[in-house]
Amino acid sequence: MFLETIEKPNDIKSIAREDYGELAQEIRDFLIRKISVTGGHLGSNLGAVELTMALHLALNLPEDKIIWDVGHQSYTHKILTGRRDGFESLRQFHGLSGFPKRKESDCDVFDTGHSSTSISAGLGMVKARELKGEKSTIVSVIGDGSLTGGMAYEALNNAAKLESNFIIILNDNNMSISENVGGVSKYLNNIRTASGYLDLKEGIYNALLGTKRGDSTISRIRRAKSSFKQLVIPGMFFEDMGITYLGPVDGHNIEGMVRVINEARRVKRAVLIHVITQKGKGYLPAERHPARFHGAEPFDIETGIPSKPRTEANYTDIFSTVMCKLGQRDERIVAITAAMPDGTGLKRFRNMYPDRFFDVGIAEEHAVTFAAGLAAGGMKPIVAVYSSFLQRAYDQILHDVCIQNLPVVFAIDRAGLVGSDGETHQGIFDFTYLSGIPNMHICAPKNKWELSDMLKFAVRFGGPIAIRYPRGAAYAGLKEHRAPVELGKAEWIYKEWEIALFAVGSMVKTGEAVRDALKAQGRAVSLINARFVKPIDEEAIEEACRDHMLIVTLEENVASGGYGEKVLDYMNRSGLRNRFLGISIPDAYVEHGNVELLKREIGIDADSIVRRILA
Amino acid sequence: MFLETIEKPNDIKSIAREDYGELAQEIRDFLIRKISVTGGHLGSNLGAVELTMALHLALNLPEDKIIWDVGHQSYTHKILTGRRDGFESLRQFHGLSGFPKRKESDCDVFDTGHSSTSISAGLGMVKARELKGEKSTIVSVIGDGSLTGGMAYEALNNAAKLESNFIIILNDNNMSISENVGGVSKYLNNIRTASGYLDLKEGIYNALLGTKRGDSTISRIRRAKSSFKQLVIPGMFFEDMGITYLGPVDGHNIEGMVRVINEARRVKRAVLIHVITQKGKGYLPAERHPARFHGAEPFDIETGIPSKPRTEANYTDIFSTVMCKLGQRDERIVAITAAMPDGTGLKRFRNMYPDRFFDVGIAEEHAVTFAAGLAAGGMKPIVAVYSSFLQRAYDQILHDVCIQNLPVVFAIDRAGLVGSDGETHQGIFDFTYLSGIPNMHICAPKNKWELSDMLKFAVRFGGPIAIRYPRGAAYAGLKEHRAPVELGKAEWIYKEWEIALFAVGSMVKTGEAVRDALKAQGRAVSLINARFVKPIDEEAIEEACRDHMLIVTLEENVASGGYGEKVLDYMNRSGLRNRFLGISIPDAYVEHGNVELLKREIGIDADSIVRRILA
Repeated sequence: MFLETIEKPNDIKSIAREDYGELAQEIRDFLIRKISVTGGHLGSNLGAVELTMALHLALNLPEDKIIWDVGHQSYTHKILTGRRDGFESLRQFHGLSGFPKRKESDCDVFDTGHSSTSISAGLGMVKARELKGEKSTIVSVIGDGSLTGGMAYEALNNAAKLESNFIIILNDNNMSISENVGGVSKYLNNIRTASGYLDLKEGIYNALLGTKRGDSTISRIRRAKSSFKQLVIPGMFFEDMGITYLGPVDGHNIEGMVRVINEARRVKRAVLIHVITQKGKGYLPAERHPARFHGAEPFDIETGIPSKPRTEANYTDIFSTVMCKLGQRDERIVAITAAMPDGTGLKRFRNMYPDRFFDVGIAEEHAVTFAAGLAAGGMKPIVAVYSSFLQRAYDQILHDVCIQNLPVVFAIDRAGLVGSDGETHQGIFDFTYLSGIPNMHICAPKNKWELSDMLKFAVRFGGPIAIRYPRGAAYAGLKEHRAPVELGKAEWIYKEWEIALFAVGSMVKTGEAVRDALKAQGRAVSLINARFVKPIDEEAIEEACRDHMLIVTLEENVASGGYGEKVLDYMNRSGLRNRFLGISIPDAYVEHGNVELLKREIGIDADSIVRRILA
Repeated sequence: MFLETIEKPNDIKSIAREDYGELAQEIRDFLIRKISVTGGHLGSNLGAVELTMALHLALNLPEDKIIWDVGHQSYTHKILTGRRDGFESLRQFHGLSGFPKRKESDCDVFDTGHSSTSISAGLGMVKARELKGEKSTIVSVIGDGSLTGGMAYEALNNAAKLESNFIIILNDNNMSISENVGGVSKYLNNIRTASGYLDLKEGIYNALLGTKRGDSTISRIRRAKSSFKQLVIPGMFFEDMGITYLGPVDGHNIEGMVRVINEARRVKRAVLIHVITQKGKGYLPAERHPARFHGAEPFDIETGIPSKPRTEANYTDIFSTVMCKLGQRDERIVAITAAMPDGTGLKRFRNMYPDRFFDVGIAEEHAVTFAAGLAAGGMKPIVAVYSSFLQRAYDQILHDVCIQNLPVVFAIDRAGLVGSDGETHQGIFDFTYLSGIPNMHICAPKNKWELSDMLKFAVRFGGPIAIRYPRGAAYAGLKEHRAPVELGKAEWIYKEWEIALFAVGSMVKTGEAVRDALKAQGRAVSLINARFVKPIDEEAIEEACRDHMLIVTLEENVASGGYGEKVLDYMNRSGLRNRFLGISIPDAYVEHGNVELLKREIGIDADSIVRRILA
């Protein structure tokens, strides 16, 4: 057992070369065993085992720095930096994060979670190193999927000016979360096909790299490159941008990668090492079904089948079904995803209407303005996207969709607390950033039927509109409450007096529990399903203020710019002097963990809310 | 006078070929004459005269569609589509916009203002055309500066998949607002140098394009390209992405461009025409000082000197001066701009500390995460940026700076109403989008000295902090009020009773006028300089609520998520039942025009505020 000998950074250097393969196997077994219990990102981590080992062998941590793009492939890095025991509590509350975290280890130098940030961050660190006159190797590891994000290109464009070393490792598995997209992807594929993954060793560069070492090797490569300029050279795209290109390199050959990394460190500019890996490597179910094992629930190791098969439909399923129906009814309906056809539930729509489905890659900015262009051209685009990723396209919503008042529907999944992905993925800001935008409309369904009704309302609506719904099982209660959706109209569910609960989306269910508990204490409680966060239902507020002493708002969003502030503002403007209590997410990032547990922790579960109302 | 014969779209087609040059000259004279009076974007428009003429000659508007990236180069397009008379009121309230506006003309198919959106929008229109089975030519015109923006690359990457025609015109003047940046820019420059701007006609492509026509030409180009693969072919970068490249083409040769555009229309995929133009062409002062004539104030035609030389320092000047001082005191201070060294006032810092100055190109996303990397590496980065452009980096602020609580200072210029650039450029959302972000801190200075004090405070602060200040002359009043800046502490300027005005930043000056008017009516009025929007000064609010009947907040931001809502929320939470009035920007986009006039129009000038307080 070599794995047990690794207790801290650089311990891997005591492993003999001939045992690298055995250690890699032990890491793979460990990852599969642990993730099968806790759930987590499996495929990307299995693909990056040897690459991570090579980095840890070639570099000195924590002096040298590795920035992991997205960061969900950093499990082996966590194992090699003394956090093996943490995998018992992976992605659980107060447990090991599934992403790099500076607070966990000084070997995690930059927190990530969203895509395409690593080259920018790495370049910042390189400039800091230059200015401080320090010497260290800085490496950004970015997947080919993340390379479709515009900010990666902005960063490459700037990296081209460097006159000191900066290593960018392109971890190319020809797949982002779903299949990869676009011209650059095709280009990379051509390199893979042309110079060949299997006969890498015979490639122009690797032949050179493999035979000799030392300063002169790079010079020889440069000379070779000049004399090969007549050929179509792999990596010319990057060379054209001003980035030295090395590769392609076999991403499961540890010694080969160590050699190339050491060569790359000698280059006094930005250098990209093109590493070819296989997602899910070494675990057959993950090799065969990469999308399913991207972010996996606990599973049976033998079969790869989830341990607890899902029995309830979630909101994504409902969205998926309704989209197919809508697509049939109206040919102008088109659907857009940024690399998430599975996660957003658009896969079925893609299969039924391939011409009206667009996966633009990890490119939320383009997705939104592309949708605006489609709308300006007479289509009815639906952009399906996770709440925290839509943050990337804030300006495009404001500037390209809403100024022109274009009919784009935003289907915002994973809104509210998302659980085990933690801080970077919580969808708790969308009411805030969307509410401030003129012409925007925002609604949230209380249950599965209302998501369907709202989606149908939205495609008829004719202006910018967002529907936000949470991760996980769709609420199937309150089925009998199905008043037609009207713009800016709330829905009274229980009408009493004394306390009025205005609940938004997922919080309607919580509102029912709060009401039950208050009624058990002899209080008279109304429950109103807010439905719209913008515009708010002013009439319903007026009405509630007539008969109720206390108005309470419940939302899964931060307070600033959220629903509660809008209600309070209206009450103030209308001279409604009832008491008001706003329940929302506190002004702090929320870490990873079970959603119910997190809600208790931040005081938005039913018990906490009851206590606060009674206080 | 050919210009007078052009009254509506396509009238240009009646002009004889031999008169194109004369018409171009008349347009240039017209632009110089008009802009010298109204101000406006001169350089980019002078550079695009022939290109616009060629597009109007080759296309049929409004069936065919032109999307102008950024859009400030669309003046000739406006002239050629019957809006010549509008130039009397260019960029004035209710007058002609300086940007494309769908509401102005059916020849303006997509509103623009921010950079790098045109390819995404054009691609959306192409897909809508395909799905509707229509035939029209769709052209996106993008500058080489805008091509440094990541979303342009996201769009190119997606355009590569097209199987129908889409023309992208790269209007390459080797300059964005300031000089151009990065690897791709250098690459374009190599093309210009290699195949030569002056001997274009001799270039491989143009030789082919110039001699023959018809379907077979493109096939011949393709064949030629194959046989020239051994050479370093201009445009290989784009070809590698999957975009057909034509060029470089002389952007002041109308007939040449018409020919290439007509050829390009036959290509059944995305095709990029690389057009070389000169910014400021035909007006010597603009050719010589392109940055000064980017967005010009009214000027004397003879000399090019501004008609009303600026006498008062503006906030940008103060920022500029303080930055130089700070740079001297602390070597860890570094400054970052996204293509705006002049506009943000960083030019002097650049000259003094070139190693610590970074112009990243039109790449706000990269700018912010790059700053986060610098901060993680121990530097003290200051990102100087316009409020409306920072919208692009919302996710990077939230995800890369604030989760890690990194000490990045955001110096947000052009905050509040900016005037003549209009809807796309108003900086009226920053309090909203920044306030919702945990760990963020926000302040705004009342006058020039306070900007200096706040900047010094910010670089010492040690966490994410934004200082926002408006366009135009820095307020030089209230000089004697210079209490030390403390986190979250407001400043009492006048302390009376009855009415308390809590004013933010630029609104402190307005608050003085409001107070004077109210006092003239016998009211007792306190004026508090809020200083911090996050965190707010709870003590000051408590104190004000003790002695004042009415609390008024004044801010140049939309209400939702702004300062007022935060104050009201605190009052509610603390059981402070005083009357409250929030003065803010209404929930609607604000068009172009004189700032004072706009303020009256939307009710945030002193008179309107006084009326609302008394009502």
